Amino acid sequence: MRRIKNAFYAQSGGVTAVINASACGVIETARRHRALIGKVYAGRNGIIGALTEDMIDTSRETAAAIAALRHTPGGAFGSARYKLKDLETHRAEYERLIEVFRAHDIGYFFYNGGGDSADTCYKVSQLSKKMNFPVQAIHVPKTVDNDLPITDTCPGFGSVAKYVAVSTREAALDVASMAKTSTKVFILEVMGRHAGWIAAAAGLAGKDAGEAPHIILFPEIPFDKKQFLKHVAATVRDHEYCVIVVSEGAAWPDGSFLADAGRTDAFGHKQLGGVAQTIAQMVGDELNLKYHYAIADYLQRSARHIASAVDVEQAYAVGRAAVEMALAGQNAIMPAIVRKSDRPYRWKIEAAPLARVANREKKMPRRFISKNGYGITAACRRYLEPLIRGEDYPPYRDGLPKYVKLKGISVPKKLNTDFVV
Amino acid sequence: MRRIKNAFYAQSGGVTAVINASACGVIETARRHRALIGKVYAGRNGIIGALTEDMIDTSRETAAAIAALRHTPGGAFGSARYKLKDLETHRAEYERLIEVFRAHDIGYFFYNGGGDSADTCYKVSQLSKKMNFPVQAIHVPKTVDNDLPITDTCPGFGSVAKYVAVSTREAALDVASMAKTSTKVFILEVMGRHAGWIAAAAGLAGKDAGEAPHIILFPEIPFDKKQFLKHVAATVRDHEYCVIVVSEGAAWPDGSFLADAGRTDAFGHKQLGGVAQTIAQMVGDELNLKYHYAIADYLQRSARHIASAVDVEQAYAVGRAAVEMALAGQNAIMPAIVRKSDRPYRWKIEAAPLARVANREKKMPRRFISKNGYGITAACRRYLEPLIRGEDYPPYRDGLPKYVKLKGISVPKKLNTDFVV
Repeated sequence: MRRIKNAFYAQSGGVTAVINASACGVIETARRHRALIGKVYAGRNGIIGALTEDMIDTSRETAAAIAALRHTPGGAFGSARYKLKDLETHRAEYERLIEVFRAHDIGYFFYNGGGDSADTCYKVSQLSKKMNFPVQAIHVPKTVDNDLPITDTCPGFGSVAKYVAVSTREAALDVASMAKTSTKVFILEVMGRHAGWIAAAAGLAGKDAGEAPHIILFPEIPFDKKQFLKHVAATVRDHEYCVIVVSEGAAWPDGSFLADAGRTDAFGHKQLGGVAQTIAQMVGDELNLKYHYAIADYLQRSARHIASAVDVEQAYAVGRAAVEMALAGQNAIMPAIVRKSDRPYRWKIEAAPLARVANREKKMPRRFISKNGYGITAACRRYLEPLIRGEDYPPYRDGLPKYVKLKGISVPKKLNTDFVV
Repeated sequence: MRRIKNAFYAQSGGVTAVINASACGVIETARRHRALIGKVYAGRNGIIGALTEDMIDTSRETAAAIAALRHTPGGAFGSARYKLKDLETHRAEYERLIEVFRAHDIGYFFYNGGGDSADTCYKVSQLSKKMNFPVQAIHVPKTVDNDLPITDTCPGFGSVAKYVAVSTREAALDVASMAKTSTKVFILEVMGRHAGWIAAAAGLAGKDAGEAPHIILFPEIPFDKKQFLKHVAATVRDHEYCVIVVSEGAAWPDGSFLADAGRTDAFGHKQLGGVAQTIAQMVGDELNLKYHYAIADYLQRSARHIASAVDVEQAYAVGRAAVEMALAGQNAIMPAIVRKSDRPYRWKIEAAPLARVANREKKMPRRFISKNGYGITAACRRYLEPLIRGEDYPPYRDGLPKYVKLKGISVPKKLNTDFVV
């Protein structure tokens, strides 16, 4: 009979409205297999919690609290932007991981994140082979950027997509009513560092000619200022107002971002911000049109109140599948969503090898962007539409969503050594 | 028997998530009194529609379309920032109004707006007396700024309040999970030019010590940079992260706005924007903390998807009451909401004389702001809490809210004269 091992679960990178739904899927499924999996320990602040032996004992949480993770945004255990370096050159980190995992009898590693995390997870999956420590590492996909390869979509994306599409439709009605005497141009800045998936989702807000959004600025299409201003002016002339959705990753033909704040995050990515203002000033200065702009920032990826039901379901499903695949003996894989049909949207979960997932970015295909570069095509719409389906409202109390706060009881430390990250 | 007269209805100023619910209340109530009120003509783009004889015949809309106004944000007939000038010095405008009203047999004037519109409505209400044209003018209150006097609250505010409180709670969970290795300070910029009501609503997101928002910057409290930065640093030290909600009207001790874009709108108000960035740079430069900021802008006031049920109900109720009061022979009044109790929230509608409403701004009382100036008091909470109660979700199709688009059939013109506004 197989010996019972504990599991380690951690959240990594930017959190989403549904990353806790994946956590819920992992923990609830593990609890249903107590004969095979012992306890699920969650890293406090992601992988850092493993390195510093700072873990939360999820077995101390009630079933109701774990169930409530399904409707609670943010990262309930804390996330981290921390990328493990190469196994060959930074052996100490991996030795520490093994030390902690061994001390707590951890045989399963569930890592919930995006592309960078898939890379970390892949490195951990190699510990059996390269450092003779038996661990099964499964990557639980998550990223609002929707840029993981193989999987049809990434949990977290559908809810941002829905938020952006709904907000664009709503704000457009506002601007349309103000245009006669006031605001003529409205700009909404959305996330998406290198891929325009989130910006594309705004395209779902309107379909018919003249309907907002009138212009989407994708990172994939080099920004042509002259052409852009011409298009804005024509839109205002024809429809009295113009709604523009701009990706934070929109860039000039030379590849530099329209808004380059110059700061960098822990992964070495440039921290962006301010593209909305850049576009707004352009419109104000060169066309002399009154504008307003909104920057959705964290609101878009934490908006659990308007989460997509499909997204919530998929987020839970990849968490559940991760545990089931681990129990089936798999290692170095990611439960990927496979689309079987568009309408009705049917999908299933299949294991994708992490070697094929890590460090690859899925960009928007050019055929998803309209010929003039400012809109989405019917093919893109067919792809996106199912992902924002259904409303999965959280429960409310006194007019506010009831989000759970876990007890977060620490697993007693067994090691006497500190590890500085 | 009283002769049947038609009614004129118009939307004015910034629109809200529920201004159409008031339109719905006006039109549905008028339809229930066909023996007394003929048709309801809506000004296309507000009062400008009256001056240019450009009106929409609401009797051409189906009952279902009118009912759907209740859940549709924005201004379905178009709004306008256009303030009628003094009757004494700008007689031509009033003569034109009378010419149009006479041509279309209009005896009721329902004007749906905020403080500036109350002033316009009051001027129109004086036409009987001063220019011998019989018209009953009723002001239907609306403003997200919540700054109309007498009424307990202004329809439109409760839904923005709910949006801001929900968004703050959600974004706070996001930042809290990122704080260990990434963003430590999150700033949300909200509306509220001169009054901090909307910013105050963010305070509902948290209650216990340490819960977000940690700092609210009100227009009512002169900004003290040194004190502010000290408070941010202390919050990050104690709680690892800091959520700041800042009103667009936040100002320096000399009264100048933290963000002064220098532009002005049609009412002569300064158009603001950029205070979030000002605060963010301060935090980055002086405290060297990683920040993110969001600017809700139009998203907050058009977010019908998360409207407050109480707000929707009140918006409809003031529309209905306006018609009923007109039929009862009243003039120069505004249906005001009168609070009868906090918990349970009980309220009724009473007529308030427009002379006491126009051109008065209701500021946040100092006793609603905590002693240190960064939070709300229990009294403020008691006032605000009932206003965000209940969720009034719109219907959805394919993952997006089904908002109505009216046919908008024009009333045939009867005058051959043009009027340039």
